[in-house]
Amino acid sequence: MRAEIIAVGTELLLGQIANTNAQFLSQKLAQIGVGVYFHTVVGDNSERLLQVIRLAAERSDLVIFSGGLGPTQDDLTKETVAAYVGVDLVTDANAMKYIEDFFTQRGIVMTENNRKQALVLAGSHVLPNDFGMAPGMAIRHDSTTFVLLPGPPSELYPMVDRYVMPYLIDLLPEKQVFHSRVFRFYGIGESALEERLLDLIEKQDNPTIAPYAKEFEVTLRVTARAATAEAGEALILPVEKEIRDRVGQYIYGTGEDSSLHEVLVNELRKRGESIACAESCTGGTVASLITSVPGSSSVFRGGIVCYTNEVKNQVLGVSEEVLATEGAVSEQTAKLLAENVREKLGTTYGVSVTGVAGPDSSEGKPVGLVYVGIAAEGLPTVVKELRLAGRRQAIVGRAAKFALFYALQMQKER
Amino acid sequence: MRAEIIAVGTELLLGQIANTNAQFLSQKLAQIGVGVYFHTVVGDNSERLLQVIRLAAERSDLVIFSGGLGPTQDDLTKETVAAYVGVDLVTDANAMKYIEDFFTQRGIVMTENNRKQALVLAGSHVLPNDFGMAPGMAIRHDSTTFVLLPGPPSELYPMVDRYVMPYLIDLLPEKQVFHSRVFRFYGIGESALEERLLDLIEKQDNPTIAPYAKEFEVTLRVTARAATAEAGEALILPVEKEIRDRVGQYIYGTGEDSSLHEVLVNELRKRGESIACAESCTGGTVASLITSVPGSSSVFRGGIVCYTNEVKNQVLGVSEEVLATEGAVSEQTAKLLAENVREKLGTTYGVSVTGVAGPDSSEGKPVGLVYVGIAAEGLPTVVKELRLAGRRQAIVGRAAKFALFYALQMQKER
Repeated sequence: MRAEIIAVGTELLLGQIANTNAQFLSQKLAQIGVGVYFHTVVGDNSERLLQVIRLAAERSDLVIFSGGLGPTQDDLTKETVAAYVGVDLVTDANAMKYIEDFFTQRGIVMTENNRKQALVLAGSHVLPNDFGMAPGMAIRHDSTTFVLLPGPPSELYPMVDRYVMPYLIDLLPEKQVFHSRVFRFYGIGESALEERLLDLIEKQDNPTIAPYAKEFEVTLRVTARAATAEAGEALILPVEKEIRDRVGQYIYGTGEDSSLHEVLVNELRKRGESIACAESCTGGTVASLITSVPGSSSVFRGGIVCYTNEVKNQVLGVSEEVLATEGAVSEQTAKLLAENVREKLGTTYGVSVTGVAGPDSSEGKPVGLVYVGIAAEGLPTVVKELRLAGRRQAIVGRAAKFALFYALQMQKER
Repeated sequence: MRAEIIAVGTELLLGQIANTNAQFLSQKLAQIGVGVYFHTVVGDNSERLLQVIRLAAERSDLVIFSGGLGPTQDDLTKETVAAYVGVDLVTDANAMKYIEDFFTQRGIVMTENNRKQALVLAGSHVLPNDFGMAPGMAIRHDSTTFVLLPGPPSELYPMVDRYVMPYLIDLLPEKQVFHSRVFRFYGIGESALEERLLDLIEKQDNPTIAPYAKEFEVTLRVTARAATAEAGEALILPVEKEIRDRVGQYIYGTGEDSSLHEVLVNELRKRGESIACAESCTGGTVASLITSVPGSSSVFRGGIVCYTNEVKNQVLGVSEEVLATEGAVSEQTAKLLAENVREKLGTTYGVSVTGVAGPDSSEGKPVGLVYVGIAAEGLPTVVKELRLAGRRQAIVGRAAKFALFYALQMQKER
């Protein structure tokens, strides 16, 4: 199946937002083996939109639109597709009820243009919008399937996961199930990972193996297509074994939405443990990652951002002698920071980060030198030395994630 | 002039990256009044790329490509445009020298395919690549100008700013200068700002007025086109006065790259002042924003992330009585946290944030209720109550920025 994605909205052509919907949809289509051949962005202009629709219908079997389903006059995706396909717009009763309830519940008078959002193409398959007013829809015309989706990502993403993917899988010529497993890595770069798995990636067919990098973490998705989930699982297992044999030490978790801080917080909760951190060069990044996880207050007691030697000394008890002889960026300081913050805040684990984030070197130590300390109840403290590349923000981001990764490793020892 | 942007690369169609180059180029073109009518993404396939080029040449005066200038066989933008325009590829001596020097300096043997990167379209205007090997280029054919740019943003962005923009401005029918001023706002949303300036925005022509929102801040760009920068300035001044009269209290700075934390750190440095923070619901976000600014170590002493009442009490001296009667999320707690962290760390300012980030309410207080405290040497402490909307991460992000904004306001009082 040849697919293309059309985003409708002048705000995209003005550069006010990036076309992240196309990225999201492309990832989803790749997972079920549908090839995307073009992305197009067109403004809120029915003539140019119609040109784009004609061309897409000629060259693609599946055309997915995002945007232009809203209540204003600018929103004309439905109207233009209806004109091309030659059908009327009719009111969808469920969508209308959702809209009316929305206004009634809030005690607001509904303006007339909101009714427009309940209109759908006659004869289309309606895709419910669980987070907004305008439903999506799918309609076949000649040999092309048109899918119309709302523009806001908060509405489009769940609509795709809940309703569009099952609809598309059903469209595929062979009835099959897509069964996938996501592996999350830390401590290895995307290219190094690819190199270690190159022969697997090159000969991939079923299951497919797709690595991608995001926010200093690397993810590998293995997707099998088969008649049943069980048969898919059977295809994935030997590949998983091979991956774990080669790079298992870098895998910290599996699953889509589980970044390092989420895995760490969830593990701490499960085990009834707690954590505190002392941060110098990461300046609060470790704490803000941990506290970004809902419910982290049950495991995270607090953190000290000790940006100066006075704070390291007065608040965290690193002696002036250690700071003078070993330096703020040293194994010994990292060790004391981790131990002392753990003791001060009474937690199971204490994590520390001290290093040189740049742009300038410090204490004669090079940019990128970072020490991460992990103290844990009942275990000797571990300090890891890192040499990180990149600019200030990259060094800070990577150092913070390394701290989380080492905390997870320490947890396995306890 | 009608422009369109073509990004070449299968990684975009697989959703591995978003097309942020198109967003960047669109913003730049909007600033000089060039209308962008289409974005297209096509894979590394010469046949489909040629189709896209033909269509673009028919409908647009300016076609900007990004990607496909690299050394591998997949990179075929130059080859395909050369075939369409009917010119040869020739070696650019400057680019070749850059490439050879790169390898010589690093003592690495250059592989043959790297020479490919020095090839340019015969007769084209070469755009130097100051951060990579493949130069950009521009060539006119019939009535269309084709501009070819490298894909990596670290190469494309500076090439656009340094070489593409001057080239394009020169192409514009009237010789003019684009003179602009950026106003940075906090404490007012994008739609509220638009509403207050609606008549100005609607009747805009020269200068143009473009608001956009990013990371919880709102920016307004006013751009005048005129024969000289002085004439442009004269057009901007009355609009600036009008904007300041209406919404001046929300303007915290001017300039492109100056977010709230950068302005705050720079002001503190200028004045020789220092700051510390005590964060509950923002969990380290205020500290990490401040420390993201290079050189912040001269003004930022440290921060305490006091996620539990024990830390608020034991480390920051908020009495158990206040925590029990007023609560952790209260005006009184915010006041004490700001004052005590300032005193403990010996800084000019102490900033505190305590609130309910959600998803659940806390102490019977609603999600979104946040108190920001600002203590300053020699001034009475100020506490601001906020009612913030949105999900957990949005509440945290907005609350942190409010803290920075109020610290800047307090600075003006001193």
